[in-house]
Amino acid sequence: MKLATVRTDEGTRAARLTDDGHVLLDAPDVGALLARDDWADVAASARGQALPVAEAVFAPVVPRPGKILCVGLNYRPHILEMGRDLPEHPTLFAKFADALIGARDDILLPPESSAVDWEAELTVVIGRTVRRATEEEAERAIAGFTIMNDVSMRDWQFRTKEWLQGKTFDSSTPLGPVMVTPDELPGGVRPALSLGCRVDGEVMQKANTSDLVFDPVTLVRYASTIITLRPGDVIATGTPGGVGHARKPPRYLTDGATVVTEIEGIGRLENTARTA
Amino acid sequence: MKLATVRTDEGTRAARLTDDGHVLLDAPDVGALLARDDWADVAASARGQALPVAEAVFAPVVPRPGKILCVGLNYRPHILEMGRDLPEHPTLFAKFADALIGARDDILLPPESSAVDWEAELTVVIGRTVRRATEEEAERAIAGFTIMNDVSMRDWQFRTKEWLQGKTFDSSTPLGPVMVTPDELPGGVRPALSLGCRVDGEVMQKANTSDLVFDPVTLVRYASTIITLRPGDVIATGTPGGVGHARKPPRYLTDGATVVTEIEGIGRLENTARTA
Repeated sequence: MKLATVRTDEGTRAARLTDDGHVLLDAPDVGALLARDDWADVAASARGQALPVAEAVFAPVVPRPGKILCVGLNYRPHILEMGRDLPEHPTLFAKFADALIGARDDILLPPESSAVDWEAELTVVIGRTVRRATEEEAERAIAGFTIMNDVSMRDWQFRTKEWLQGKTFDSSTPLGPVMVTPDELPGGVRPALSLGCRVDGEVMQKANTSDLVFDPVTLVRYASTIITLRPGDVIATGTPGGVGHARKPPRYLTDGATVVTEIEGIGRLENTARTA
Repeated sequence: MKLATVRTDEGTRAARLTDDGHVLLDAPDVGALLARDDWADVAASARGQALPVAEAVFAPVVPRPGKILCVGLNYRPHILEMGRDLPEHPTLFAKFADALIGARDDILLPPESSAVDWEAELTVVIGRTVRRATEEEAERAIAGFTIMNDVSMRDWQFRTKEWLQGKTFDSSTPLGPVMVTPDELPGGVRPALSLGCRVDGEVMQKANTSDLVFDPVTLVRYASTIITLRPGDVIATGTPGGVGHARKPPRYLTDGATVVTEIEGIGRLENTARTA
């Protein structure tokens, strides 16, 4: 099942996407839908007019997650090629919901940064409340997967030791277009999917989510040791090599650049960078 | 004016504290109250039975802030005594709302950490939506000040380079008991207040908020350059010297320890550390 949050004239609505179109659901967004214990049944059984998908205007798939957790340094080949040891623990940092944009929205380039970079990431969407989850509880807590481009202002990210300020600029971070339930993905809750990012048509990142050091289930278990995870919370699982900051010379997003972030079986984000 | 969020049999309510007691307001909490443009008038003009303050059961003053921003390394004497240069930019990191507890609640000691530490902090509460605030806009965006003890699991904080995971354990972080409007504080929106933390009656931290490197107005301006600040968002301004981790030998909270966090003119948090 594929779920989205779409913009309508009356505000946002959760929707189920099918081959025939998108069917509006009785919830203002996917976050509110997931807060219902019976969300999967409600979403699967909804009937109604199927509207053309082409007309769907995607909001962030969860517009206001209670938590946006992000993971750093999590792709095995990239860590090894940098000559580093694999990490013992996940590196976690946060974003705030005001950073999020929809799957076709513009990425706002703030005048305060001259180093705006891309980071394609497989992203877990939580569907059940869990704390100190067992392996099985963690598996069942994963409602599905979506795509984030964890757009990063590198000059701000590295001003101090803590990355947050370079990671949470307003209207920088596309999340969507859809959440796909694990049953539709090869590998299920530990999906093995090709993931990539192209800028102005040029392939910048290309990897497979099977190369994650800490897989989605492990990340849910780890994060839930620290804090209660709740429906609608999201965990961006980290990005592979190929970011602009590591290129020689470095390369960053400029006004008008097109950014396509794609994960096999989920879909694609297509955003244009625009000077704010 | 002093505002609090109190627990009642029917859930939480915003309240105004007076010498006669606390008057319940028509809002579920201080965060919801601040979302109204006329919050100050609504709170000041509310009439009703004044209930004894002693019976007030304090929830976190804003129970679910949209953002909890925290600042590291911000007390001048402590930085200088460590032999470091004053920082050019604030260090920012986040907490999630599930970490918050009320002013008299127990601090939960998770079995996964053996290094739970205290950090008394003056905390800004935002009362107006601002982005790229001017000095004057930043001053007006400050609804008031409260107290946070930014309780930190040092073993988790320093596992990786990013502090988040040691800063956001469930039910670790008292916030309250009240928010005091700037007009009631010496120094107003740049308050000069004695601040301290005692553990089991022993003074651990003692400083004055006039020694902040980045004052509250500067922090609001800086954070609003990055992201929109909204009513109910909070910014914890950092802690002075005297934390347990820096002591020789280090000292941490154990089951039954009492933690009193006090700021002149605002009030005090009184929490007991309890093994979860």
